[in-house]
Amino acid sequence: MAKMRPAARFYLLYSWSLLLGFICVLSVVYWSYKWHGGFAWDGTLQHFNWHPVLMVTSLVILYGNAIIIYRIPSSQSGSKLPWKILHAGVTLVALLMSVVGLVAVFMFHAQSKIPHLYSLHSWVGLSAVILFACQWLSGFMSFLLPFAPPWFRRLYKPIHVYYGMAIFILSLAASFIGINEKLIFSLNGKNSTSYSLLPPEGQFANVLGMLLMGFGFTVMWILNSVQRQPSVPEHTEDRQPLLEGDD
Amino acid sequence: MAKMRPAARFYLLYSWSLLLGFICVLSVVYWSYKWHGGFAWDGTLQHFNWHPVLMVTSLVILYGNAIIIYRIPSSQSGSKLPWKILHAGVTLVALLMSVVGLVAVFMFHAQSKIPHLYSLHSWVGLSAVILFACQWLSGFMSFLLPFAPPWFRRLYKPIHVYYGMAIFILSLAASFIGINEKLIFSLNGKNSTSYSLLPPEGQFANVLGMLLMGFGFTVMWILNSVQRQPSVPEHTEDRQPLLEGDD
Repeated sequence: MAKMRPAARFYLLYSWSLLLGFICVLSVVYWSYKWHGGFAWDGTLQHFNWHPVLMVTSLVILYGNAIIIYRIPSSQSGSKLPWKILHAGVTLVALLMSVVGLVAVFMFHAQSKIPHLYSLHSWVGLSAVILFACQWLSGFMSFLLPFAPPWFRRLYKPIHVYYGMAIFILSLAASFIGINEKLIFSLNGKNSTSYSLLPPEGQFANVLGMLLMGFGFTVMWILNSVQRQPSVPEHTEDRQPLLEGDD
Repeated sequence: MAKMRPAARFYLLYSWSLLLGFICVLSVVYWSYKWHGGFAWDGTLQHFNWHPVLMVTSLVILYGNAIIIYRIPSSQSGSKLPWKILHAGVTLVALLMSVVGLVAVFMFHAQSKIPHLYSLHSWVGLSAVILFACQWLSGFMSFLLPFAPPWFRRLYKPIHVYYGMAIFILSLAASFIGINEKLIFSLNGKNSTSYSLLPPEGQFANVLGMLLMGFGFTVMWILNSVQRQPSVPEHTEDRQPLLEGDD
């Protein structure tokens, strides 16, 4: 029973993160649908709408779920290979979705004659995606392909974990900047109620930002607290067979 | 010699974080001075200028330095009391500076008839300051005042460490949103070059954002990597005398 408690706590936190993540994805879709005319792939504002939906879904929600996969209690015993493939698979889907999300905003900018990559939002967001691509490739080559020697994997693992967290934080920050920027552009730029008067769209998207913050906090709490009480001691885990020994 | 290496690595990273932090503070002062007419305390835009300077200096740079104090090698042996007092002192200065930074923007808004607390920037930033105030008070009462029993300190310590990191991340995110928002307001709002054409002010403040990101990454790397190789094992550290035993 005492052994069950960390697992129960994990699943409680995990359910909470899944619920929050689901609400965040629904909310960003609803925001675009309700106040910005839904979705299209034609260079218009409806084309742009894919950008927040795809970036939030991929870089924050899917990515956040992918980085806590190794905290799932059943991942901590038995073969690691299925969990590695799941981690690499979910992050690959997230990476590809984020690239499509970038394509959406580049195509919208090109059609609307808006310069690319001028804002701090774009600098932070692009840093996140570039680091994510590097991280995915180096993780794949180091932990899934059978070429990297064990000493290199042990050396690289904490760096991979650190960058995994850093990219998540950058993605969250880019989302916050993007939501704030979109609200200023859409509410202050047309003859609608100014953002400063906090019309329904402003309230809704601000709450979306706070929900994303809550999701980020939950993921980081899982990373932090579950790591502190691993089912198997960390030094044992490091010596578990990697891919060569798994298959 | 082998014992020296983690300390040397720490001081190298620490020097880098100090250098980056110093450049960030200088840059945010220069931004206000060069493009927004310097500083005043009269409800004008020059009054507002205290806001970014004080928030970045307190919530990001001073705070970031305060949370790595316990990673300084010499803090890991001998009495903990001087380090606790230093940590509490630097964070208190940071908290008070951040409150003055908030007062600056509230007074500017009041004079300019701009509603308070409407943007996601303000929601994220105020969350950071409120959590910081709660964190400081609960840290002070738990770790410096002699009333909390050791079992409570052990229970609360990982929570304090987690929130310490979370507040730092929120502060960084609030800074990014604030820089982006300020550039949109100041460059798109007047008859100057639009932010999208990336005039010198836009380039400068975007680079400031990236420097803050670099500072944040360095602090998190120190927290992450130095924690992994503590001079004293963590379970020993937990049993070291706390305030009651120190004085």
